[in-house]
Amino acid sequence: MTRLFNLIAIQDLAREDIDRILDRAQEMEEISKKRSNQLGSRIMACLFFEPSTRTRLSFESAMLRLGGKVLGFADVGVSSAGGKGETLADTIRTVERYADIIVIRHPLDGSARLAAEFSNKPIINAGSGSEEHPTQALLDLYSIRKMKGTIDGMHISLCGDLKYGRTVHSLAMALSKYDVRIRFAAPSQLEMKPAIVNEIIRAGIDVEEVDNMADAVKATDVVYMTRIQKERFPDVNEYNAVKGQFRIRLEEVSLMKPDGIILHPLPRVDELDPAVDATPQARYFDQVEAGVVTRMAILDLILG
Amino acid sequence: MTRLFNLIAIQDLAREDIDRILDRAQEMEEISKKRSNQLGSRIMACLFFEPSTRTRLSFESAMLRLGGKVLGFADVGVSSAGGKGETLADTIRTVERYADIIVIRHPLDGSARLAAEFSNKPIINAGSGSEEHPTQALLDLYSIRKMKGTIDGMHISLCGDLKYGRTVHSLAMALSKYDVRIRFAAPSQLEMKPAIVNEIIRAGIDVEEVDNMADAVKATDVVYMTRIQKERFPDVNEYNAVKGQFRIRLEEVSLMKPDGIILHPLPRVDELDPAVDATPQARYFDQVEAGVVTRMAILDLILG
Amino acid sequence: MTRLFNLIAIQDLAREDIDRILDRAQEMEEISKKRSNQLGSRIMACLFFEPSTRTRLSFESAMLRLGGKVLGFADVGVSSAGGKGETLADTIRTVERYADIIVIRHPLDGSARLAAEFSNKPIINAGSGSEEHPTQALLDLYSIRKMKGTIDGMHISLCGDLKYGRTVHSLAMALSKYDVRIRFAAPSQLEMKPAIVNEIIRAGIDVEEVDNMADAVKATDVVYMTRIQKERFPDVNEYNAVKGQFRIRLEEVSLMKPDGIILHPLPRVDELDPAVDATPQARYFDQVEAGVVTRMAILDLILG
Repeated sequence: MTRLFNLIAIQDLAREDIDRILDRAQEMEEISKKRSNQLGSRIMACLFFEPSTRTRLSFESAMLRLGGKVLGFADVGVSSAGGKGETLADTIRTVERYADIIVIRHPLDGSARLAAEFSNKPIINAGSGSEEHPTQALLDLYSIRKMKGTIDGMHISLCGDLKYGRTVHSLAMALSKYDVRIRFAAPSQLEMKPAIVNEIIRAGIDVEEVDNMADAVKATDVVYMTRIQKERFPDVNEYNAVKGQFRIRLEEVSLMKPDGIILHPLPRVDELDPAVDATPQARYFDQVEAGVVTRMAILDLILG
Repeated sequence: MTRLFNLIAIQDLAREDIDRILDRAQEMEEISKKRSNQLGSRIMACLFFEPSTRTRLSFESAMLRLGGKVLGFADVGVSSAGGKGETLADTIRTVERYADIIVIRHPLDGSARLAAEFSNKPIINAGSGSEEHPTQALLDLYSIRKMKGTIDGMHISLCGDLKYGRTVHSLAMALSKYDVRIRFAAPSQLEMKPAIVNEIIRAGIDVEEVDNMADAVKATDVVYMTRIQKERFPDVNEYNAVKGQFRIRLEEVSLMKPDGIILHPLPRVDELDPAVDATPQARYFDQVEAGVVTRMAILDLILG
Repeated sequence: MTRLFNLIAIQDLAREDIDRILDRAQEMEEISKKRSNQLGSRIMACLFFEPSTRTRLSFESAMLRLGGKVLGFADVGVSSAGGKGETLADTIRTVERYADIIVIRHPLDGSARLAAEFSNKPIINAGSGSEEHPTQALLDLYSIRKMKGTIDGMHISLCGDLKYGRTVHSLAMALSKYDVRIRFAAPSQLEMKPAIVNEIIRAGIDVEEVDNMADAVKATDVVYMTRIQKERFPDVNEYNAVKGQFRIRLEEVSLMKPDGIILHPLPRVDELDPAVDATPQARYFDQVEAGVVTRMAILDLILG
């Protein structure tokens, strides 16, 4: 088992690497409450070329809880990469001189891996293009393990925009390393790409595909919902039809297993009715907190 | 006397609560110079949905002087609340997992109170809509007490835009808990709302109303000046007429009591002539510094 | 030798002041790696009225490595100076109450010196208008001394936009305090202003002027390259002609002394071919790291 250096894609991690991160995340629960100074001299650079509340603040909170320090930018407009046309490679080769670790979110596929090629300091991918968001997948796994006690044996529905959502891509690949059953639930326009479905089947996972929410939520242990974005549809009527159908309301909750849980990477718009928030199945805000300890674990394993 | 948790509106505080904050602010004068680590493990989230220099940096400076840590955003454009249409309730339920206390500025009336309803962590209102800016009112009270030795017995002129200025609304309500006399000085278009005037009179306060600066500054102990904003006037000529009249120049200072003081929440535009800055009456930059210790006191009382 | 308080312009510093900063920068190499808490209670305000990655993050990294704390803004749009038209003088008189030192970048010539007039706290100029960028000049000097072992005796080519580049203005003035030879290499439209050339000659420096890159790079110890900005040219064809000529490619490197070095303040666009990065002459990313220790030295000399 090699030492963790970069974290670019879930595919780079063996199951034992993932388990090690989840084990450390569990240890971080206590440290998160009490705080620590174990990374007291370390500096994390956050380079957010796309807006974000959750991922950036979650990483910053994780680093601060471990005593570390933070610098960076939340808006590419304030950087040379914005105004002066600097290449990503040059930005990385500069910022690696300022920090001990770099957390990057960037709109282009492959950007985080490119950053890692040019950096002597560890790179954490905080979302690159439409393909990868590995720390979200890890916090999703940690949420499942924490809330359900185990990942192995779970039956999991991945719902919503499975075609463009980088979160579900990373999560599906991560889950395929465990002994799970996966149900994909998406409107026909937003189905999971066949290449990914086939890869998961080849990994020995039992896969179903459904096209409506009633079938999506029945009899599974975890319902993982995602947002459907208007800009994916050429025709607004088509979008409205899909949006009206791919929602979780109290009605859908009533079809779930009583001890099933609903997760969501957030932010949500209409796809999770606020009435659902009060049900015991709704665990998406606890999932936010799981994000902090998961990121503490990643920072500690890389820098500690 | 209950423990301070949220700070949403001045009306929520009894005089003894306010006095306790002002007493603590006085103790913070020394700590502010020497610095402390008493909030060393605590994290403050600053959520600024409206631009601000003073209030945000003042809170950050206060937290850093107490050894605490800061995260957040200064520009809603970099957050999910901007780009992705997240509700305020969801943003708050997310950020409360990242921080120990949330400082929020938001353009809508009632936003801070809404935030408090959805948060398990303390909320401090750093300006909501046109109604409330309680920490400004507290630092104004502290400035008066520090510079004049007492609040009780003071005769105070509140001048400028009394209709829309959230600062003067909060300050007038706060002053009404003390044994003061208040003079409202505003152009007729920008008079203090009758509902607030009546509430203050009912609290037993002696109130005068005047419509020009010469009458505003005479014989009072404190002249609290505010900015008149162009956008409040449908007719630019009307604005120019008012603006030219509601100014403090050396001429107006000469009408003041020799030991009177001028305060202003800043930023100023034309309403305080720079020539006034050199007079002993001008105390608005000292008021800025009073803001730091007042906010240190508030953070310490809530988190300490 | 007076104690360092403000750092506004290279011209304000005697050679012994500069040498003291460079000596301290050398001491900071070790501290930069190990980190320190020597400025643990100090607060640095970064006021960036113009976008920047490098200078802002470099100062922040320097302050954090010394244990200090940082607040400020990276984008004038989030400040009162943006939205509310506050004067620079008022912004400074406010922020000096929040911080122990102020680092300012501003688009107007003279802005940093104006800030110093209104501040009781030290001001560091992080770039004002087209005239001054003294901490860049100091880190350039430190880079030369570190990489070449000495500044005295060096033969240095300053290349590119010598007319508008504030970096080369400050650097040329700084170099003129040493026993160096300077070669100016610029297209005719972007030549160094005669006033500066004459001042440097009067300081006893041997000066050459050339108008092409082949002549620029030959036989000198340091080639300091800068970016040529499109917006300086009224005619885009003229720009393209100049841009195509003022580049360093492998061909130009082959004309350099084998132990010569290439520096660049970055960001670069086309003027440094990426193929050059792998040559031993390319030292511009090491120069980035030299910026951190130089700024640590400046902060420590002012605040320590």
